[in-house]
Amino acid sequence: MTMQAAVFVGKGRIELREVPRPKPGPGEALLRVTLTTICGTDVHILRGEYPVKEGLIIGHEPVGRIEELGDGVTGFSVGQRVIAGAITPCGQCRACLSGSGSQCSHGGNGYEALGGWRFGNTINGSQAEYILVPNAQANLAPIPDDLLDEEVLLCPDIMSTGFSAAERGNVRIGDAVVVFAQGPIGLCATAGARMSGASLVIGVDALPARLALAKRMGADVVLNPNECDVTAEIKRLTGGGADVAIEALGKQVTFENALRSVRPGGTVSSLGVYSGHLTVPLDAYAAGLGDHTIVTTLCPGGKERMRRLMNIVAARRFPFNELVTHTFKLNEIESAYDLFANQRDGVLKIALLP
Amino acid sequence: MTMQAAVFVGKGRIELREVPRPKPGPGEALLRVTLTTICGTDVHILRGEYPVKEGLIIGHEPVGRIEELGDGVTGFSVGQRVIAGAITPCGQCRACLSGSGSQCSHGGNGYEALGGWRFGNTINGSQAEYILVPNAQANLAPIPDDLLDEEVLLCPDIMSTGFSAAERGNVRIGDAVVVFAQGPIGLCATAGARMSGASLVIGVDALPARLALAKRMGADVVLNPNECDVTAEIKRLTGGGADVAIEALGKQVTFENALRSVRPGGTVSSLGVYSGHLTVPLDAYAAGLGDHTIVTTLCPGGKERMRRLMNIVAARRFPFNELVTHTFKLNEIESAYDLFANQRDGVLKIALLP
Amino acid sequence: MTMQAAVFVGKGRIELREVPRPKPGPGEALLRVTLTTICGTDVHILRGEYPVKEGLIIGHEPVGRIEELGDGVTGFSVGQRVIAGAITPCGQCRACLSGSGSQCSHGGNGYEALGGWRFGNTINGSQAEYILVPNAQANLAPIPDDLLDEEVLLCPDIMSTGFSAAERGNVRIGDAVVVFAQGPIGLCATAGARMSGASLVIGVDALPARLALAKRMGADVVLNPNECDVTAEIKRLTGGGADVAIEALGKQVTFENALRSVRPGGTVSSLGVYSGHLTVPLDAYAAGLGDHTIVTTLCPGGKERMRRLMNIVAARRFPFNELVTHTFKLNEIESAYDLFANQRDGVLKIALLP
Amino acid sequence: MTMQAAVFVGKGRIELREVPRPKPGPGEALLRVTLTTICGTDVHILRGEYPVKEGLIIGHEPVGRIEELGDGVTGFSVGQRVIAGAITPCGQCRACLSGSGSQCSHGGNGYEALGGWRFGNTINGSQAEYILVPNAQANLAPIPDDLLDEEVLLCPDIMSTGFSAAERGNVRIGDAVVVFAQGPIGLCATAGARMSGASLVIGVDALPARLALAKRMGADVVLNPNECDVTAEIKRLTGGGADVAIEALGKQVTFENALRSVRPGGTVSSLGVYSGHLTVPLDAYAAGLGDHTIVTTLCPGGKERMRRLMNIVAARRFPFNELVTHTFKLNEIESAYDLFANQRDGVLKIALLP
Repeated sequence: MTMQAAVFVGKGRIELREVPRPKPGPGEALLRVTLTTICGTDVHILRGEYPVKEGLIIGHEPVGRIEELGDGVTGFSVGQRVIAGAITPCGQCRACLSGSGSQCSHGGNGYEALGGWRFGNTINGSQAEYILVPNAQANLAPIPDDLLDEEVLLCPDIMSTGFSAAERGNVRIGDAVVVFAQGPIGLCATAGARMSGASLVIGVDALPARLALAKRMGADVVLNPNECDVTAEIKRLTGGGADVAIEALGKQVTFENALRSVRPGGTVSSLGVYSGHLTVPLDAYAAGLGDHTIVTTLCPGGKERMRRLMNIVAARRFPFNELVTHTFKLNEIESAYDLFANQRDGVLKIALLP
Repeated sequence: MTMQAAVFVGKGRIELREVPRPKPGPGEALLRVTLTTICGTDVHILRGEYPVKEGLIIGHEPVGRIEELGDGVTGFSVGQRVIAGAITPCGQCRACLSGSGSQCSHGGNGYEALGGWRFGNTINGSQAEYILVPNAQANLAPIPDDLLDEEVLLCPDIMSTGFSAAERGNVRIGDAVVVFAQGPIGLCATAGARMSGASLVIGVDALPARLALAKRMGADVVLNPNECDVTAEIKRLTGGGADVAIEALGKQVTFENALRSVRPGGTVSSLGVYSGHLTVPLDAYAAGLGDHTIVTTLCPGGKERMRRLMNIVAARRFPFNELVTHTFKLNEIESAYDLFANQRDGVLKIALLP
Repeated sequence: MTMQAAVFVGKGRIELREVPRPKPGPGEALLRVTLTTICGTDVHILRGEYPVKEGLIIGHEPVGRIEELGDGVTGFSVGQRVIAGAITPCGQCRACLSGSGSQCSHGGNGYEALGGWRFGNTINGSQAEYILVPNAQANLAPIPDDLLDEEVLLCPDIMSTGFSAAERGNVRIGDAVVVFAQGPIGLCATAGARMSGASLVIGVDALPARLALAKRMGADVVLNPNECDVTAEIKRLTGGGADVAIEALGKQVTFENALRSVRPGGTVSSLGVYSGHLTVPLDAYAAGLGDHTIVTTLCPGGKERMRRLMNIVAARRFPFNELVTHTFKLNEIESAYDLFANQRDGVLKIALLP
Repeated sequence: MTMQAAVFVGKGRIELREVPRPKPGPGEALLRVTLTTICGTDVHILRGEYPVKEGLIIGHEPVGRIEELGDGVTGFSVGQRVIAGAITPCGQCRACLSGSGSQCSHGGNGYEALGGWRFGNTINGSQAEYILVPNAQANLAPIPDDLLDEEVLLCPDIMSTGFSAAERGNVRIGDAVVVFAQGPIGLCATAGARMSGASLVIGVDALPARLALAKRMGADVVLNPNECDVTAEIKRLTGGGADVAIEALGKQVTFENALRSVRPGGTVSSLGVYSGHLTVPLDAYAAGLGDHTIVTTLCPGGKERMRRLMNIVAARRFPFNELVTHTFKLNEIESAYDLFANQRDGVLKIALLP
């Protein structure tokens, strides 16, 4: 049996191909994908900026139904609606048992940087009609009956990543938090900061449409770097500096502004994927004596994480659905990449229907 | 094939029996047990105070060699020397993925009180020639080459439990910590408090021999309740109350003395198994306004925990081996229980050789 | 010069008296009180259940203007609108420097249980025309210009106490939290749980009017113990138990229900003032092996705490103003106590105008 | 009345001068200095690399006796032996009340980077016969009777800074920790890592004498970068990377090696004062996806901190006294600076006797 899938064929080329439909081995599950999406990381893969092997199926955000369960996977049933996180920790390796599941070593005795990210990276991904979920016992998360597929589409990556910024930044009740960049991840980070008790959430972006949505996602104030001196304005609004600054873009300028925006003793929580060169401005860093904390986070995964995120969706705290701006069929995948990679038409996230 | 095993036959009777030797299923491992021990909990089982089903093999502290690996267990080899913790978290259920592995639900979507304790409780245990380890991928911990079996015998339960008192009590550098009861667990709690940075560790027990060993395990000062007013003396030594008090016996009197020994804002870290009735003295509790914290902990398990504990043994920080006072062969099990249950001859822990 | 003040005259009698108006010593500030309130604790004092010395001025929630500054208090100005917390940590004793400001020893080298609670307890309180604020440098918190006196009336005690339940209970994003009792403190605890990221907040009370307000203060679901088996319903709603249960009444039954409502590994965060006898039900406590945490908290104080709480009011997250149901003049204080002590007319909090 | 003091006269010149002896104002205390020391920071001041105003008395590590108490300082007595930390938090400003006392704003409503460091920076310091201690109530720490002056000399800065690396790095029981540079602060960081429960402490330095002392201060293993590839060796010893790496020098190379030495999910705890340029190597940083944490810390101060550190000295956990290698009289201060600034004769710390 075969299936349709979006395959990385070579630099600049992701194409729809007919490939064999896989069979689940022990501990695995086969899902029929009912919905998935495209991530900025996929665009890096497309452009050859992040290396994957040719022939790999791309995508790491599966929503689907269980088609078949491998040996040893219990407590689930065929036909059940589930999601799996972008990161699929095994739960049984040294990294997972130490609370670093995103750096999972797949049962082993060590840590692998980014080891938990397997879908569309080291194994076949979700932009296909079917997908194999590894370590299914730890990674299949049933969708609550009252939630539609499209409502949980962002849980596997965008919501998990965005919320982790506030969690790892240890946002506390009454904090002032600034979020640099209001793309999909930044918007979820804004919601996460608001949900963590910040009494002042400041959203920063250069696009007015994104700032408008930032307000709906929990920002009390929004700032456009084209219209003001952002760090000066943050210092004014916070009386000296934010408690936590979240970086959600991955550029030197936003990292640096994040550090310049926090008070002595404050925290920079970074989500961005940096390339080239990253420098710490020593003036803003108080020469290393400012009691600063800088944390980075790779999207937490696993079924318990997904259960929690779906519960947040179900609680209707924020209009997460507004982040999905476009819908394509899987066989329109190349058009979808074209739109998304070029950030046309106000695109935030695309729903992709196999 | 059969094997010898200590079986709970009925109230007051644990007997050596010839039973079938098990075969590992998927995800399991069969160990040939080379060393194990008897725990106070086993005595509760013997006496019918803690119910288990008749016919169960007792014991939860296996040291051994891998005899056979079930399907899907990778990265280990037959003949390898390993231990497994008393608690065997699956790593893949909601409880495990939430950091509550001792309350493991075996792959499920909830929590089971004490669910991670399976050996000698809900499945066959270690007082036998062979033992099946469930969720072997998460629970087999290779013994470092430079450690003898007898050196790691206490890792599966006593050390893990004892050390957890300081960890969960959040002992910090410069704290004053008191440990009530200096049995095997209390002695390891004393070592754990010392290792966590306490600048004053106070050991309490009524037996002079145990107090002498407490000093070797890290106590700076020891107190005998038969010789002084313990809580008054603790308040004097600490200038008003300990930061953390560890309860390692499970009695109302020690729980209450622990609470009376801590300063306002202090923490009681409880390891004891209580029966009957447990009351919080409201005077010591400041009527609920003293910013107190009370934590309980069930022995943390899993291979990463075991790896860390064996590393502590290897670092030769404390004379853990002195806690093993007697050695018996498995076919002397009934004598071993008799000695241990009656706490004769200064027994602390017994090494049991299958 | 004299002033009017509500004075504890003896058991059952708080009366308006003409007393000398105080002068601020070094480090103190004199406030002209513009608004204050009555707390449940004041009723305990009235009834002789909590002992204070005769002649003491009652009350611990001052809103006012700076009338005079003692020597050494800098950065404030006469006429400035400020509040001070119910708890006035000195910032300079061992307890304060250890983060236990509510157990402040007033500059000393130890801890005093409840030592930070001075207003209306060990020094004169706020139900008067003027009040002396000790350690003014650490305790005067300027009111933002855009907030009215009545909007910040609950910050000194009710909000600080209520929010601390979620903070000390370590509520995290996606948690299920239940709050037992929806009086003023419980309602603020409900808001605090919601603000801390809980995806399910359950409010429990027997009064329908309070449950209705609970929903406006952040509860997703409300339960009336007269209408259902509360702990069973909580277990059903949470799939096995809440992550955190908050006790906001101070009774054996609510403490016990809180413990019965949490999952293994869960936390009970207690705000209640207990009297008589407090027992831990060992079945719900898993005999001490359930990885439970029990924390108590006394209202955090200090100017930074007050600044943060006023910012939360300013962010308009919840209708805190609805908790103030009645207004009295200071010279009607005896009627105010009568209404409040007997909980007539749906009273929650009373605004008291000197 | 006058006194002798080491005064910064201009770039390259610290000279002994006769200056007026100060009088304590409200909240201050005057100490007669009985012992103090020279810090690497003082050498930066001497060289004009860290700007202070001309005429300032240098030094920030006072051991002495109370000569006179200003108004409002209670609970201390003239003649009492005390120390004060290098950092003197006021305990009453927003920063202090938020737990960021090193970034103290002296009673104010904000944060000042390094604001808690006043001695020998913004006010006169300890290399003098007398010193004024600001916010004395929060900063005078009585020396236990059984400790000599020379035994507590390192508490004000070196010990507090060194230990903070392990505290802020959140070293846990069983961690592997590496400490880059074994000068006085690094040696105390080594002791701090050991005291925090690390089962493997690795000390790194290029000087054999310092490595020998590192072993006495708690290092299990020492590495000399002139003799091996340090990061490769650390990865081998730790099975993939240290849990925590401490940077105690303030150079790009040690910062970078620290980051290269930690496992994915690990922490770099930085104590160094950086100058010039600080770059984060993106390969070691997993492009920002490695779940890394980077923390910096400025020496924690205040009397409670000092009390705790003196208790650690009293507990005789490590031979702190071996870090004091030379003794000079205050009137030999210029020779002392010459020896120390040029790191001759194996100098670690100098005891300076006024």
